[in-house]
Order: sequence, then structure tokens, then C-alpha cells
Amino acid sequence: MSTLRIEHDAFGPVSIPAERYWGAQTQRALEVFGSKQPFAPSLIRAFGQQKRACARANARLGALKPELAQAIEQAAEELASGAFDAHFPLSIWQTGSGTQTNMNANEVIANRANLALGSELGSKSPVHPNDHVNRSQSSNDSFPTVMHLTTVLELRGRLLPALGHLRNELQAKADAWQDVLKIGRTHLMDAVPMSQGQAFGAFAQQIAHGIARIEACLPRLRLLPQGGTAVGTGLNTPQGFDVAFCEEISRLTGEPFETNPCKFEGMGTHDALVEASGALNVLAVSLSKIANDIRLLGSGPRCGLGELIVPDDGLTSSIMPGKRNPTIAEVLVQAAMQVMGNHTTITLAGASSTFELNVAKPVLIHNLLQSIEVLTDCVSLFTHKLLHGLEVNRPQLARNVEHSLLMATALNPLLGYDRVAQITRKAADEGLSPKDAAVQLGFITAEAYAQHVRPEAMIRPATPTDND
Amino acid sequence: MSTLRIEHDAFGPVSIPAERYWGAQTQRALEVFGSKQPFAPSLIRAFGQQKRACARANARLGALKPELAQAIEQAAEELASGAFDAHFPLSIWQTGSGTQTNMNANEVIANRANLALGSELGSKSPVHPNDHVNRSQSSNDSFPTVMHLTTVLELRGRLLPALGHLRNELQAKADAWQDVLKIGRTHLMDAVPMSQGQAFGAFAQQIAHGIARIEACLPRLRLLPQGGTAVGTGLNTPQGFDVAFCEEISRLTGEPFETNPCKFEGMGTHDALVEASGALNVLAVSLSKIANDIRLLGSGPRCGLGELIVPDDGLTSSIMPGKRNPTIAEVLVQAAMQVMGNHTTITLAGASSTFELNVAKPVLIHNLLQSIEVLTDCVSLFTHKLLHGLEVNRPQLARNVEHSLLMATALNPLLGYDRVAQITRKAADEGLSPKDAAVQLGFITAEAYAQHVRPEAMIRPATPTDND
Amino acid sequence: MSTLRIEHDAFGPVSIPAERYWGAQTQRALEVFGSKQPFAPSLIRAFGQQKRACARANARLGALKPELAQAIEQAAEELASGAFDAHFPLSIWQTGSGTQTNMNANEVIANRANLALGSELGSKSPVHPNDHVNRSQSSNDSFPTVMHLTTVLELRGRLLPALGHLRNELQAKADAWQDVLKIGRTHLMDAVPMSQGQAFGAFAQQIAHGIARIEACLPRLRLLPQGGTAVGTGLNTPQGFDVAFCEEISRLTGEPFETNPCKFEGMGTHDALVEASGALNVLAVSLSKIANDIRLLGSGPRCGLGELIVPDDGLTSSIMPGKRNPTIAEVLVQAAMQVMGNHTTITLAGASSTFELNVAKPVLIHNLLQSIEVLTDCVSLFTHKLLHGLEVNRPQLARNVEHSLLMATALNPLLGYDRVAQITRKAADEGLSPKDAAVQLGFITAEAYAQHVRPEAMIRPATPTDND
Amino acid sequence: MSTLRIEHDAFGPVSIPAERYWGAQTQRALEVFGSKQPFAPSLIRAFGQQKRACARANARLGALKPELAQAIEQAAEELASGAFDAHFPLSIWQTGSGTQTNMNANEVIANRANLALGSELGSKSPVHPNDHVNRSQSSNDSFPTVMHLTTVLELRGRLLPALGHLRNELQAKADAWQDVLKIGRTHLMDAVPMSQGQAFGAFAQQIAHGIARIEACLPRLRLLPQGGTAVGTGLNTPQGFDVAFCEEISRLTGEPFETNPCKFEGMGTHDALVEASGALNVLAVSLSKIANDIRLLGSGPRCGLGELIVPDDGLTSSIMPGKRNPTIAEVLVQAAMQVMGNHTTITLAGASSTFELNVAKPVLIHNLLQSIEVLTDCVSLFTHKLLHGLEVNRPQLARNVEHSLLMATALNPLLGYDRVAQITRKAADEGLSPKDAAVQLGFITAEAYAQHVRPEAMIRPATPTDND
Repeated sequence: MSTLRIEHDAFGPVSIPAERYWGAQTQRALEVFGSKQPFAPSLIRAFGQQKRACARANARLGALKPELAQAIEQAAEELASGAFDAHFPLSIWQTGSGTQTNMNANEVIANRANLALGSELGSKSPVHPNDHVNRSQSSNDSFPTVMHLTTVLELRGRLLPALGHLRNELQAKADAWQDVLKIGRTHLMDAVPMSQGQAFGAFAQQIAHGIARIEACLPRLRLLPQGGTAVGTGLNTPQGFDVAFCEEISRLTGEPFETNPCKFEGMGTHDALVEASGALNVLAVSLSKIANDIRLLGSGPRCGLGELIVPDDGLTSSIMPGKRNPTIAEVLVQAAMQVMGNHTTITLAGASSTFELNVAKPVLIHNLLQSIEVLTDCVSLFTHKLLHGLEVNRPQLARNVEHSLLMATALNPLLGYDRVAQITRKAADEGLSPKDAAVQLGFITAEAYAQHVRPEAMIRPATPTDND
Repeated sequence: MSTLRIEHDAFGPVSIPAERYWGAQTQRALEVFGSKQPFAPSLIRAFGQQKRACARANARLGALKPELAQAIEQAAEELASGAFDAHFPLSIWQTGSGTQTNMNANEVIANRANLALGSELGSKSPVHPNDHVNRSQSSNDSFPTVMHLTTVLELRGRLLPALGHLRNELQAKADAWQDVLKIGRTHLMDAVPMSQGQAFGAFAQQIAHGIARIEACLPRLRLLPQGGTAVGTGLNTPQGFDVAFCEEISRLTGEPFETNPCKFEGMGTHDALVEASGALNVLAVSLSKIANDIRLLGSGPRCGLGELIVPDDGLTSSIMPGKRNPTIAEVLVQAAMQVMGNHTTITLAGASSTFELNVAKPVLIHNLLQSIEVLTDCVSLFTHKLLHGLEVNRPQLARNVEHSLLMATALNPLLGYDRVAQITRKAADEGLSPKDAAVQLGFITAEAYAQHVRPEAMIRPATPTDND
Repeated sequence: MSTLRIEHDAFGPVSIPAERYWGAQTQRALEVFGSKQPFAPSLIRAFGQQKRACARANARLGALKPELAQAIEQAAEELASGAFDAHFPLSIWQTGSGTQTNMNANEVIANRANLALGSELGSKSPVHPNDHVNRSQSSNDSFPTVMHLTTVLELRGRLLPALGHLRNELQAKADAWQDVLKIGRTHLMDAVPMSQGQAFGAFAQQIAHGIARIEACLPRLRLLPQGGTAVGTGLNTPQGFDVAFCEEISRLTGEPFETNPCKFEGMGTHDALVEASGALNVLAVSLSKIANDIRLLGSGPRCGLGELIVPDDGLTSSIMPGKRNPTIAEVLVQAAMQVMGNHTTITLAGASSTFELNVAKPVLIHNLLQSIEVLTDCVSLFTHKLLHGLEVNRPQLARNVEHSLLMATALNPLLGYDRVAQITRKAADEGLSPKDAAVQLGFITAEAYAQHVRPEAMIRPATPTDND
Repeated sequence: MSTLRIEHDAFGPVSIPAERYWGAQTQRALEVFGSKQPFAPSLIRAFGQQKRACARANARLGALKPELAQAIEQAAEELASGAFDAHFPLSIWQTGSGTQTNMNANEVIANRANLALGSELGSKSPVHPNDHVNRSQSSNDSFPTVMHLTTVLELRGRLLPALGHLRNELQAKADAWQDVLKIGRTHLMDAVPMSQGQAFGAFAQQIAHGIARIEACLPRLRLLPQGGTAVGTGLNTPQGFDVAFCEEISRLTGEPFETNPCKFEGMGTHDALVEASGALNVLAVSLSKIANDIRLLGSGPRCGLGELIVPDDGLTSSIMPGKRNPTIAEVLVQAAMQVMGNHTTITLAGASSTFELNVAKPVLIHNLLQSIEVLTDCVSLFTHKLLHGLEVNRPQLARNVEHSLLMATALNPLLGYDRVAQITRKAADEGLSPKDAAVQLGFITAEAYAQHVRPEAMIRPATPTDND
């Protein structure tokens, strides 16, 4: 068992494991709420950046003595680097403002700074967690600032690059399979020909738009409410703190953050985060479609569509030896379901805003960060371990184009809809090829049919030559 | 009972009410699916614009004889004007491509055009519903084109103006109540002062952002898949049809539509519509917050918060005579719930895309148009009949500011967090004002307290003078 | 234009179309809220039953003079029969308690009863809408009572019978196709054989359980809060009114309703209705699976799985003449999406309960009744127009069983997993049948293979004989 | 770094950390999918019970030699006890059948059993992971069996007891505050009196019904598909295995499990788990209402409703020293949001069932178990640390009853609705008490008013005496 030390807060003394940097409010919270479901490390570390930028802004504006500011900055930098992850024990199941985790950051930094300044843990002197580390701040503006900060950094640093790779891989397939003919399907039923590259071009555009949708959220995600303090008014901040903070945090992170012109909006509501979740929800919709199409087109190997060949991942059934399954596509589909469900939670959390503070912050940001992480990981998996090695089954594709019933559609301009309907019906009823049916009906000669119904010409609009 | 006439399609003869312009495929669909839940008239009328623009583009490109194109155009214009609403009997519960409603449009226009050209209903000559009205088209590109068309027109023509009015009204309140002090509340608990105008400024920013979110969707909503025909390849269209169509439809509607560079994406998926629903979902979140805050702040009249006075709408309880309720705010909250639920349906519909055609089009567009309509109507109701007449209860606001327990927060910079905590605790435990508690504790004189704790100064950052 | 008459309420005079039975509060509500989206007729008519039972209970307990009670009863009976549907103009977008629609019922009945008693419209005498029709009631207990009433009647009278037919039709297919072998598929990939009847037996059990799930909700749906009046206490009711009402309404409807022992729970919350929506949500999940399986198994006709043949409904493509699509299955899938989205709205509406009254009643019941109606209609359509005529494609089924790669799984007990894995791999890599691969590997003779790998024996556990 | 050993599977050799019991398929899966998000330990341990019961059933039916069965049983018992938690590294983001985790269990048990039998890790002899541990099983029946098993055990062993305590605590408050008068509120507005105990009685009934709803799901949750093997047919199982398994697992767990009469339904769909999630969704709705009511009624302390006093948890604001917030109620509200979002994911996962196997099993069960765990933990926290110490603010309650505007409602039977409306309007407009307004209007004497309007008599139906 670890030894204990005593810290004090406004409510009296508290026993804390001696080797931990957290203080009395964190310890009380731990005893009330437990530690089952921690925040993502990315959020904890973003608190390091936020406290660092606050210390700098306070120092610039004369609200914190330089030596205290410097000590806080150094400790906060360590926090940002991940050095104190183990000193953040609290669960996401805490008060709806995230106050306990903000206090955790204040206490860890104060204790660390005091140690560095030759004082001891729990002394609160010379660096006080509230008066100095939390200077010009409240949990109510700091926590949502960190929510935005982490979201932007995770989107820009992780998800968007992963989506870029996915888009590129899809486009590479689209290019490679530009001229590989396949049968198009509508209502799951055989329709008219197209190319395999065209299908993957659609996937690539879905992801390109998905990237654009996320980027469209960034302007509002980059608005930070820091400086609003308790209710949004900026009480107990020096004038200009909000702008100074954003300059500092932008410098530290390389992202162009700006102060939210209405702090009340940024603390009392989380519309911008619900919006971001909405963009992820569309992405989940797109990824479901892509993964499901690949699963279905790769179904078989002998009794399915069998047009695509999913690379072997070495995994098989526990009872059907040698069976190969599209495991990675299933992962992506499941990830999409998770993101859509998280979107419900995030919407509910956003809609629960009341008065000056939305108090569903922890559950909201936990779900949003999970959506980003799951999408990043599963998109990367899908790109590198499935898509990259995906192949087309050319014989099967060709066979399907050849057998399709609806090829006579190309004759509409020549024969009119009603006669083409007769051709297709006859072919279906008698098990004929459309060509034979057309010829038997006397609508066209075999030669003319062959000239007008060319799959490779059916995959684009008629050129002027076609119209001759 | 109406008399019947006989029309024919590829499957044989069908009996149709003599006075109706629809044809065989519509009638068959009616017999299969019934007519319980019709499409919104705005969608039906948008088909008029779409068929009109197609006729023009076909004529321009030589794919339709001028006299037929002109007859189709005229009939389509009538359709766009609403003249044929009664000739569209079909339910949204039809095939997932909306084919039956596209055929309904083809048949109504063909019949109307044939009448105009001196032919008769059901003759299909000289204007054939498939060969001429549907020329260079499929349901598979026409229906999603109309989905985008209606969505853009309804958003731009109805919802966005309604939101503009709401934003203006909220901003007017924010301006009018700029200096009306109130107690801010976090966690529903009394916090520190702010102004009533600041609270409404946050609402105004929410709606301003909501407008921006919808506008951010427009670039992708304005991409039309017309010209993709059956599976996206453009089979049976003359080259350039897609671009020509967009020029024509832009001219007709005044909206800058563009051809979707990847028709497959615009027919096989509806990511752009899921995105639009996501923007409405955020708006629903914002409106919930605004309406709920007003309901709660107007609660009472004698046992609630009572800070706002909702205008009397003349409606009352069936058992408690004279009781006044915030009925209109409740409407807005309920509308928001509807939109959030519709967003689930729309997300599911979007995620069901398979191969070259999403076949959940009718349910998707029905829900999206309902969301737009309900939001438009309920936002307008709320703006004009509630917000416009909303008043502040100044005595109650002043009383609450005066009694608040947390006013000593303003002393943090002077006394430090720990001593202010003592003040607040003592005030709470002994039922004192914070001022009396502070003085009794000997931390500050009454004069100094009065100088440092001024509500009107607490609603903004400290000015340099404050720091002196 | 209709002529007008004047009615009065506590707020003054109101002009009403002379031929309408509604009164002042309805007219005011109409002017505030409009009439765009009316309630389902089933809800309006259920108000007739509710008012009738109230009049009887009041008369029994001496709270209403017999002649007034009788006049109210008669008018309410007409309302229940649908005679006054046109006199209920209000939108669902009204106050969250449904007060305006309750007042609409009170006013229509009062006016009708007064006419019958020789008085005139708007006289409120001898029958007063509040004092007599609404006697011992509030909107706050009457509206939720009607919500439960309609829900039970629609579930029991419409949806459950439709589900019974669906289950029977599925079971009939299960029985008919008991011995029709097919290849089973897991992860969409070919697995081991089973029978087509087994697959449909699973569908039948899904629906049987779906029926059981709805029935499991009935005990809580049959608890009625009538008698709680304004807040649940029963203020202004004679003792015993709640029980007397339930006796009367049970007699009128033939359903065993009981008084909710805690009226507060039945007015302040709608957990029982959220529960019912949850049962419909599971049903939507089941129906999605069934419809999607049938769509996929019927895909083709030449480039898909092609194992089932969906009956022809006479509907086809607007561009691909003669193309047949599984339109009705698509309707059912879309209906399921609607129900799942409605479930979100209903959940949100339920979760918004505050204090003594849930004020999201109209949107909640509107969505729930829509779910029931859409499910009823689309399930019936699916049962009668798709399932009933569904056929199996025996040659295709047989071909697939014959070609399957995983048949050697039956040899696991004989050869062990690792050797069977070698067989399957070899067969896959070299395009062999598993039999040839097994023999070539020297693991088994062709005769022994044929004896141990019999598809018809693979669709059930090993009998003792199999183990010999 | 740990040393490595080599294991083999059908695909060749794999390097595994020497001290780990998992084998080749687990290691491959680890390399493909990573280990970021593990399954709940309760699921891993339930695999121990499942494998144990399978070994017993196999032994009973002669499908496994006694000595092998016994070795498997012992290893599986250790797994069930939690001894091998660290040997289950796989993520929930794996193939949709959970095959890799089933193989992980097979491999760990085989290795452990072989060690115990004197053989070595990776030998697969005498105990083979597929041929013996997985005997008569597939992942496709084992994983869903474990899903049901864990769900039932967690519901019965954890959530239901926690709900029982909550219900009891609520009922205790209902009893204690039976006669504490308070003002009832509808539409958030002051209505008529009731007792604080009545409000808590409604909460207690909500939870009692919530318990009943969960219990109503148990019959279908207790149906296990074990014995269906690959596709539901029972291929490679001895006859009677399914029933024997259920007897064994019931003996081991003390829960009355039964074999699912249709294995196809239990493997191809997860309707029963979607149903269970629906019951948790209703519970989340109930808990939201309860927690929100308590938060609102406890708002203040000086500018809110202030009728309840939430116990102090020692946590406070980082900027407003001494501020007390309803932290625990906020946790419960957030937990409810998580459960509602998980319900969306679970519904989507359920709806994705295709053919013989639902392949969204991992994401489905992960979300369901998280819902159960979060509800259990947060309900317990709420019961013990908030509800237990909750107090009423009697002076504030009394003040509110005294000042309420709607008290004259009690006069409806005496004066009629229209005159009472006049009383209330006058009182509201002129700031009078209803009593003074009534007397000034000459409708009643002060004495008669006092006799007829008694708050303590307004909280129940009129007794015969009241009617005198």
C-alpha cells in the first residue's frame, strides 16, 4: 500500500497517496465518483497546453508574477507531454462541467511547480491551484476550451490524414480499374454496364466530400470560450485575456484558434461539437456504404457475387477450416455504427444545455473523441490492410456483363421504350439473351444489335458519333 | 363514381379514373401501394421544374424535336405551378428509387401535352411518357435531382429567411436588455451576475451559426446528378446533357446549381442530404436550448424563477381557469424532437446505400422536407408570437441579483480563493449576505466590499482601472 | 366564405365558422398554431370513448345530472363514430399537454349536446364544456388516457392481427420449404448447407417474438391516469371516479383497462409509451432483416444470388424497360427506418418529462401512432403482395449447394480441423471441388467422402447412426 | 522484452510472447486489429462458463474423452474465475462474429490444459483448440451464447439489485414525505398542491416498472443458440447437445437457461438483445426525469426553486469558492444519455443482420454491457450518495403553496369554471391572493373560501364529506 499525505481544501483535510500529484478536490472526487472510465489521454494532455497558454497570457497582462507563471508553464509543458497521465485518475462520470478534471490539472501543476520551486506537495505555496494555476479561469471556460482544442488537434492531426490516405487509395483503384467493365446494379438487381473504376470513383468522392465536411466545421471549432470564466462575462480576468490566450495557444499548437466573440455561447452550448459529430455521422454513413459494397461484391467465393477479391488476413472460422471472411470490412461497418450511436449521445448532450452552462460536457467530449479515434483507427486499418490489396475478379465481372438481361436498354433511342420492354420480357421469360430476343422479335438484325449494344460504349453519354 | 378510361403499358391494360392525367404505371402503383401518405407538394412541383429543364436541354442538344419539347415544357410549367397536385396520388411508401412518382410526372405531363397537341389521354402520342418526357433521364437520376432541388429551394426560400427573422429578433432583445442585470446560473445553481442582453446575445449567435451551418451545406446540395440516367454512366444521354440541364434549371430557379462531377455518388448515396439533416439537427439542439431557457426563466408566476414574462396567447387550462402556459415554447421544443428523430431516419436511409442506387429515397426526402417545414413554421411562430412580445420582470431580476450567494467571487483577486470560500460558506450556513459574512470574518470592511463587489462591474473583464 | 358566429371564453369573444361545432378555445388555438398537421383520426375518435366513459362515471357517482350526462354521452358516441372528424382542425403542433385538443373535444361535445337539448351553439348551456363535459377531468389526465387508449386499440385491433398473418405466412413457407436445400451464408460468404425452410422458420420466430414483445407492453399500457386531474392528486373528482372510469371504458372498448395506481406517473411521464415504441423498434429491426434477406436472395436475375423469386407487381423502371425490382421489400425497409427514427423522437419526448406533466405529449403520440400505422400497412402489403407469391429458384439453390467450398466441414470429426483446413485451401487455390481436393491429398477415398459429406444430413445434428 | 515461442495454425507459424497462453489465431488477430478497446472482463469470464458447460455436455454425450473433457473443464473454470484476463488481448474491433475472441478462449484453454496434462504450450496435443475445446461448437453459436449469458448475469447480478435499492430509497422518501405539501407544477408553471411524497411515489413506480420491463426481457434472453454451430443446423454436434449444454450452464450459473428452439434466430439475429437495450432505454428516460426534477427542485440556493436540499459532496467550483452543485444528479443524466446513444448503436447493429449470421456482435455486446455497467454504477452512486441524504426545504415548500395563484381551482365545482377564471385573472393582474380576489369579486365569503380551499384537502379526490 502506498503511504498517504494530507492536503487541505475549503472543506478540510483529505488523505492522498503520497506519490501522486493530485490534491484535495481530485481526491474527494475520486472518492465520490471512482475511476472506472478515464478520459482520453489526448484530453488530459490538451489541459497542459491550455494551462501553459493561460500562464503566458496572465504573465503578459500582469496578472501573474513572472516566476510563478514560468513555474506553471514548465509543469504544464510536462503535463502536455504526457508525463502526468497517471496523475489523472478521474472518471468521465463526474460533474457535468468537468470541474473535477480541471481541478485535477490545477492541483497537479501546482504541486509539480511547488516541488520545482523547492516547496512541497500540498503546500499550495508559492503556487496555489486556484489563485495561480487557474488564474483568470474557471472550469466553465477552461474545460470547453480544452474540448475544442482536443477536437481540433485530433481531427487535424489524426482523422483528416487517415481520410486523405483512404481517398488516395480509393482514387488509385478508380484509376486502375477505369476500363474494367462490370454490371451496374440498382435495387440490387442487374442493370446496365459501368466500369469498376467508376464505382470506386464514387467512393473517392464520398471521402473527398467527407474531408470537406469536417473542414467546414473547423472555423466554429477554432472559436474558444477561454476568458469567459464563471458564466461568460469574463469576471476576474484582465481585459484582453481572451485574445492573448488565443495568440498563445495558437503559437503552441500551430492551429489558428480565435476567441469566441460570445463566450456565453461557447460555455452554455456545444453546438459546434454537435456539428462536428454530424460531420462524423455523414462519414460513418459513407464508410458503411463503401464497406458494405465491398463485402457484397466480394461475397462467395462460389455462391456469391464474387466480383472483388478481398485480401487474405490469415484469420478463419473456428468450425469451417479455411473459410475466409471480410473481417476488416466488418470492423469498419461496426465502427460506423458506434459513431452513429455516439452522435445520438452527443446530440442529447448538446440539447441539454441550460442557462449559462451545458453540464453534459464529459459525456459529450468522451463520445466525440471516441468517434474520432475509432474512425481514425478503423479507416487506417481498412485502407492499408484491405483496400490496398483488393483485387478484381475479371472473369466473373466479364461473365456478369455478358449475361445481363438489361443490355437492350441501349436500344431505347432506336426502338423506343415499349419495344425494348418486349425484348427484355421475352428474354426473361424464355431464358434468352436480349440479343436473341430482339432478333426473334424482328425488331433489329443481329449485326445492328451488335453495333448498338456495346458494353464499352454504354458506360458514358453518347458521343456525337454514337448519334449518327 | 368517376368514369374510367383504359391506358396500356408494357404489362397490359389498366383502368384509370377518366378525369385524372396519370397513366398506367401510376395506376398500378396506386393499386399496389395505396395513397395514404403523399409527398410534400413542394417535391411534386419541383418535378415540374426538373422536367421543364430536361425538355429544354434535350431540345438544345437535338435529342427532342422542338414541338415536342415545347409541349412538354408547357405542361411541366403547369405542374411546377401546382396545377396538377391532385394528379399525384401516390404515397411515399413506394419503391425506394421514387420511380413511381417520376413515372407519375412523366405520365401527367405526357397526357397534358398530348391534350394540348390535340391528341387524347392515354394515347402516348405524339408525346410518350418514357421516350419523350423522360428523355435522357431515368428515375434514378431524376428523383435525386428533385430531392436536391426541393431541399435547396425550401432551405433558401423558407427556412433561412425564418431563421434570419429569429436571429434579428433575438439580437433586438440582446440590444434592448444590454444593461438589465440578472443572476447567471451554472449547474442550475445561482452563480455570478450578467446581463439579460448577454444571454440573448448567445441565443442570437447560436442562430447566426445555425444559418452558417445550413449555408455550408449548399455547395454539395447544389450538385445535381441529372444526366447519370440508369446507373450513373449517362447511358442514353447526349454528351453535355448534364451541364445543359444545370444551366437550364439554374435559369428557371435562380439558384446556381452545378452538375455533380460524379453522378454515381449523387445517385448511389445521399451523403449531402444526411449532411443537411445534420445541420438541421444542430439547429434543433440550439432551438431546444433557447426555448427551454425561456420556459424555465418564465416559470411561475409566483413559485418559479419568474424572470421573463411570456406573452399571453389567450389559451388556458381546461381545469385550472386562467392558468397561462408557455405553449409556443413547448411547440418549438417538440418540433426539435421531431427533427432529431427525423435525423435518425435520414441517417439510416443514407447508410442503406447499396451499389449504384440508394433505395431509401422516398423516406429520406419525406423526413428531410418535413424537418424543414416544421422548423420553418415553428420558428416563425416562436419569433412572432412569443419572442416579439417577451418581456423581462425587472423587480424579480433585481431581487435575485441582490440575494445571490456567490457575489464574493469578485473578491478572489483581492482575498484569494480560500478566504472567499470561507465567506461563502459562512453566508450559506448562517443565512447571511456575503457582505455581512465577509465583514464578520474581518476580511474586508463594508466600504471596501461595496467598492469591489459591484454587480454592474462584474459582467465584463476587469478594466485597467478595476485593477488599480 | 362561411358565415361566422361569436363564442366567448374567459378571454372574451371569438369568431368561429358558423357550421363548426368547435368553440372559443379551439378557435384561438387555430389562430395561434394553424392546422397543418392534424392528429390521427383514431386519436380524435378515442376522445369520444373517453368522454363517454367520463360522463357515465360522473353520472354513477352523482357528479353530473343524468340528463346532462346522457346528452354528453350521446354526443361523445357520435364523436367516437367519426362523425365529427371535420370539427377537429388543430395541429399536433400545439401545447405539450394536448390541452387544445381536449378542449376541442369538450367544445364539440358541448355544442352538439346543447343542440340536441334544444339550445344553440356557443350557449354553453345547459352543457358547459368545462363544467360538464370536462367534469372530474383535466387535459392533463384526459389526454394521456386517450394516448394509452388509442395505442392499445391500434395495437390490438390493427398491428397485432397484421403480425399474426405475417407470422403465419412465414411459417407456411418454412413448412413448404422444409427440405429445400440451400447454402447457408455467414459473413455473406458461402458456408455449409441448410434448408430454405429453416431460414423462414427463423423469420417466423422473429415475428412470433415480436408479437410477444408487444403483448408484454400491454399491462402497462392498460394503466390509465384518468382521475388524476390537474397534477395527479384527483382534485375535483369524486372518490372512486378513477376506478369507475376504467370500468366504463373497459365496457365500451372490450379491453381490460385498469386505473394507474399512481396517476402522477401516468401524467408526468410516458415511460409506458416509450416502452411500446421500443417493442416496435425491435420489430423494425426484425422486419429489416427479413426484407433485406429476401431482397438479397432474390437479387439478379442473372448476376445476383437468384435463389428466391419475388412476385411480379407490374411496376418497372422508367429507363430500363422490363426491369423488375423488389419494390415491396424496399417499402418495408423504409417503413422500418421511419419507425426507428420515430423511436428517437419518442425517447426524447419521454425523457423531457418535468415535474407533474410531460409536455411533449402531442409529438410523442403522433409519432407512436404513425409507427403503428406504417407498420400495420407495410406489413400487410408485404405479407399479401410479396410473401404470399414468393417462390424458390430450385435449380439455382441446388447449383449453389453443389459448388460450395466449405462442404468438407462435415469431415471435422473424422479428419480433424487441421487436415480439413488443408482440403479447403487446396480446393480454393486450385479451383477444385472439396471432394477432389480431399482425395488428392490422400485424406479420404471418394467413396468415404460421399458417405460422410451428404448435404441432406448436414442440416441437423448427428444422429446416433451418423456417429457409427 | 518478452521472449517468443512459435505456434502454428493452418496458415503457418506465428511468434507469440512466451508467457502468454493465447495461440496462433489470437496472435494473428492481434497483429491485424490491435488491442486498443478490450471486451469487458465479464464477457471474457463468461466464456469460461460456456466452455466448461460445453466440455461437460460433450463428455455426457460421448463426444469428448473424459480425460480431455476434465482438463478442459478445469482450465475453463480458471478462465471463469478471472485468472486469464491478461491472456485476452483482443479489441472489440474485430470480425463481426467475435470469432477471434472465441478462438482466443479455445487457445488459452487448450494451452492451459495441455500444460496441466504435462504437454507444452503450442503443442495442440492432447488438447486441440478446435477439435476439443471448440468441440460441437462454432464461434457462430458460442459467441452469441456468451452474449446472452453475460447479459443475463450482469442484469440479474448487478443492475436489478441496484434498481431494487433505488426503488426502496425512493419509496422511503415517498413514505417519509407523505404529508409534506408542495405546489404541483405543470408546463413548469405553478398549478395546484400535492405532497412531496406523491412526487417521490411516482419516481418509485417508474423504477418498479423499469425493473418489470427488464424482467420481461429475461425469457428471451435466457434462450441460448449453443448447438447451432456454423449456420444454425447443428452440424457436427451430437444429437441433444443443445439441451445438455443448457442443463450444464444452468447448473453452473444458477440461471434457468433454455435452448433456443430456433438456433437460426439466435445466431442470425439479435432481436432479444435489442429488446433488452430498449428496456434500458426506458430506464434511462425514467432516470433522466428523476434526476432532472431533483436538480431543478434543488436549484438555488437563493434564486432558484429551492424546495429540495441536495447533500453536500465536498466538491465545489474552481472559481466560485463554496458553490455547491448537484454533481451526482448530473452524472446520472449523462449516464442516461450514454445509454440512449448506445441504444442507437445496438439498434443499428441488430438491424444489420444478414443471412445466417449477424456480424455486428462485438459492437453490439460491447455497447450493451457498457449500458448495464454505467447504469449500475451511476444508479448506485445516485441512491447512496444523493438520494439517501436528500432533504426537503419545508419553509420554502410552505411559502410556495401559500403564494400559488391557482388555488381557486378547488372552487370549480362550487362556482363554475368561468367565475374561477375571473378570480384567477384578477388575482394575477392585481397581485392579489386568489382569496382576496374571490372575495372582492363577491363570489364567496372569506370564511367559505377558507373552508373550500384547503391545500391539505386538495391532494386527493373529494371524500363524500367534502361533497356535502
